[in-house]
Amino acid sequence: MQHFEQEIGDLKQTLLAMAARAETAVNQAIQALVDRDDDLARTVKEDDDVLDRFEKEIDERAIALLAKAPLATDLRLITVAMKISQNLERVGDEAAKIAKRSLELSQEPQLKAYVDLPRMATLALEMLKQALGAFVSSQSDEALAVIPHDKAVDQLNRQLHRELVSFMVEQPATISRCLNLMVISKSLERIADHAKNIAEEVVYLREARDIRHPKLGRTDASPE
Amino acid sequence: MQHFEQEIGDLKQTLLAMAARAETAVNQAIQALVDRDDDLARTVKEDDDVLDRFEKEIDERAIALLAKAPLATDLRLITVAMKISQNLERVGDEAAKIAKRSLELSQEPQLKAYVDLPRMATLALEMLKQALGAFVSSQSDEALAVIPHDKAVDQLNRQLHRELVSFMVEQPATISRCLNLMVISKSLERIADHAKNIAEEVVYLREARDIRHPKLGRTDASPE
Repeated sequence: MQHFEQEIGDLKQTLLAMAARAETAVNQAIQALVDRDDDLARTVKEDDDVLDRFEKEIDERAIALLAKAPLATDLRLITVAMKISQNLERVGDEAAKIAKRSLELSQEPQLKAYVDLPRMATLALEMLKQALGAFVSSQSDEALAVIPHDKAVDQLNRQLHRELVSFMVEQPATISRCLNLMVISKSLERIADHAKNIAEEVVYLREARDIRHPKLGRTDASPE
Repeated sequence: MQHFEQEIGDLKQTLLAMAARAETAVNQAIQALVDRDDDLARTVKEDDDVLDRFEKEIDERAIALLAKAPLATDLRLITVAMKISQNLERVGDEAAKIAKRSLELSQEPQLKAYVDLPRMATLALEMLKQALGAFVSSQSDEALAVIPHDKAVDQLNRQLHRELVSFMVEQPATISRCLNLMVISKSLERIADHAKNIAEEVVYLREARDIRHPKLGRTDASPE
């Protein structure tokens, strides 16, 4: 079964490569927003294919590995890998959405300096990196540590949302720009959600307990 | 392997029960919105647990079945069942979100009669029902027929979005209500997306080709 172990290792490496690609997409999308760089924004939108292909590849390899998996824990690991890949593919969708909204925003004068959005992106990507690292090294405590950070991103999103609503009320001419910024902020919040989902899957995998829906059990994870 | 077939049949029945529950949640959320029924909205939010439990149950049974699956096609079927359950759980999240926004909306006078939103809900739920039916009966042509309907829901969402932007520009006092309605409209659009995802998984299962990302292949499915 050494060959099988090797293939599981390869699957993990492919997931890491996919995660790096997703991270780049988000970073580029935010850079395109901040620098008002339309070419970069278009590149992000077009490159979304790469993550779609990764998802397919991982699905195919996972199905092949499921047929050979000797243990129930292997089955769990492989299904978790498929779920992680689905989350990463959606991170890519959010990056493409951010790029699209950046293109719309660059048609009008800039509303304000973007400070909160790059900060949210950094936080969300840090969560993603840690969650993937925890998967590869099978450290459920590392994965558990990721989960509370989701609240910080949620809070930044809510705060920005409130600011943008005030802007809209005071200056209706800014409404379409504010809506675009709200969508971008929500996208970053969702990327943090995907990171949290991944972390929860890793904890589930290692501890064979399901913390995805904390309200259901008597776990000490913080409720929604 | 007759026992195995029976268990696969049970898994499909559980998915159908989960889908019925998700459908009820969406219908109740829209009814709560239209009737301004806060009690019903609160019920929808609280009942979201039921779908979370369904997802866990299906995951556990799927992992157990994977260990016994004799054929690669069985492995595919089981992983698709897990993906469908994840989509249904997210439909439940959207229903809870609609209910939450309905509670906020009922704090202020009603902005306009709700015509488009119930229509979008009906369309999205019809898609969901057909996609699940196609999974259970293994009919990929039925599943394929679901996919184009997603465009109709997208279009209703975009149209409503435009109307609401005009409203906001003309009457800034309506901004918070318009934002809540935009979120609800987007939720319904996302429910239709989940139905489309399920339909695509069914087609993939039956035809062993992946139409989830049409841009990648030379399929005749319409591009994004």
